[in-house]
Amino acid sequence: MTIDRIQKQMAFLIEADKIKNIFRINHITDGTRRENDAEHSWHLCLLAIILSEHANYKELDLLKVLKMLLIHDIVEIDAGDAYVYDAAAKAAQHAKEVKAADRLFNILPDDQAKEYRALWDEFEERKTPEAKFAAGLDRLHPMLMNLHSQGKSWLEHDIKAEQVKAKNQHMQEGSEVLWEYALQNIIAKAEEENYLVK
Amino acid sequence: MTIDRIQKQMAFLIEADKIKNIFRINHITDGTRRENDAEHSWHLCLLAIILSEHANYKELDLLKVLKMLLIHDIVEIDAGDAYVYDAAAKAAQHAKEVKAADRLFNILPDDQAKEYRALWDEFEERKTPEAKFAAGLDRLHPMLMNLHSQGKSWLEHDIKAEQVKAKNQHMQEGSEVLWEYALQNIIAKAEEENYLVK
Repeated sequence: MTIDRIQKQMAFLIEADKIKNIFRINHITDGTRRENDAEHSWHLCLLAIILSEHANYKELDLLKVLKMLLIHDIVEIDAGDAYVYDAAAKAAQHAKEVKAADRLFNILPDDQAKEYRALWDEFEERKTPEAKFAAGLDRLHPMLMNLHSQGKSWLEHDIKAEQVKAKNQHMQEGSEVLWEYALQNIIAKAEEENYLVK
Repeated sequence: MTIDRIQKQMAFLIEADKIKNIFRINHITDGTRRENDAEHSWHLCLLAIILSEHANYKELDLLKVLKMLLIHDIVEIDAGDAYVYDAAAKAAQHAKEVKAADRLFNILPDDQAKEYRALWDEFEERKTPEAKFAAGLDRLHPMLMNLHSQGKSWLEHDIKAEQVKAKNQHMQEGSEVLWEYALQNIIAKAEEENYLVK
């Protein structure tokens, strides 16, 4: 074990600390402040371990799902957060994120740089069972945060139920059970409570 | 799949959101504010996946390590954070945490309540390879945060190198390599830079 290898790993781990200052549009459930990417990533991993039985795939590699979720927002250190309902910001985002991935994962030793870049690409492409499930949780989580903060960020941005359904429906590729839950117990409930605009 | 089961899982996931408001003694690396338990838990998981090759154990179950780290601080929702160098606070902490574990994990469906309570107990007992490695990372992480925030919380609490060595030396049960790294590249460096009191 060379010290050079550990130093590269530590440099990546310290650089990653910056996602604690990347704030998202959605709020934590008490509505007092926006959530940052580190908190969001932890919460997504917790969703993954507690809800994995609901994935469409019996043979899901849960460790791979967790690795993807732990690093999926690292690129926002350079690229910033783009609101999922802001079409213009989203369109410009991918090129920025690819550039960020080129810089950030290469802080790691070569073998790990390749491994984690491949995991990030897999997550973004959303073709494998693990990527579909992980990306679905990444859509479920802000819906949950919105429902439990009285629709705070939805109402701030004039979001309608149709937009939430359109942007989040790919959740069903990872879990039909959780998408059905979201339709009935999050989106329909949020409409009833006027947490979404008409 | 009954809706009752998913509702229990969601109730636990929403209750867990409260650790985003449990602030630790150590700061994030830019020194601007204290770190909360959700951010700390995410960062520990990132340490685990990037540094697992340095564990003393070839057969480490990394998924189990991650599950432990994701839930290890949930009990602080009820028990609060106790500073590792505050002996009086630490002595009173365990009983509070057990009571918290009794309440919090039982929000989950019975099988998951048992699974996650057992994982929390295993982490606390620090007898298995996974618990030793996970608990070692839980000691490495605040040292890293201190080194990269110019010893901010160490200096605020008059912490000396001997205290850091005494409290964190059990790290070597999980990884001799990382404990050696901490001695040479974190603690010795922090002494040189006067990030610890003499």
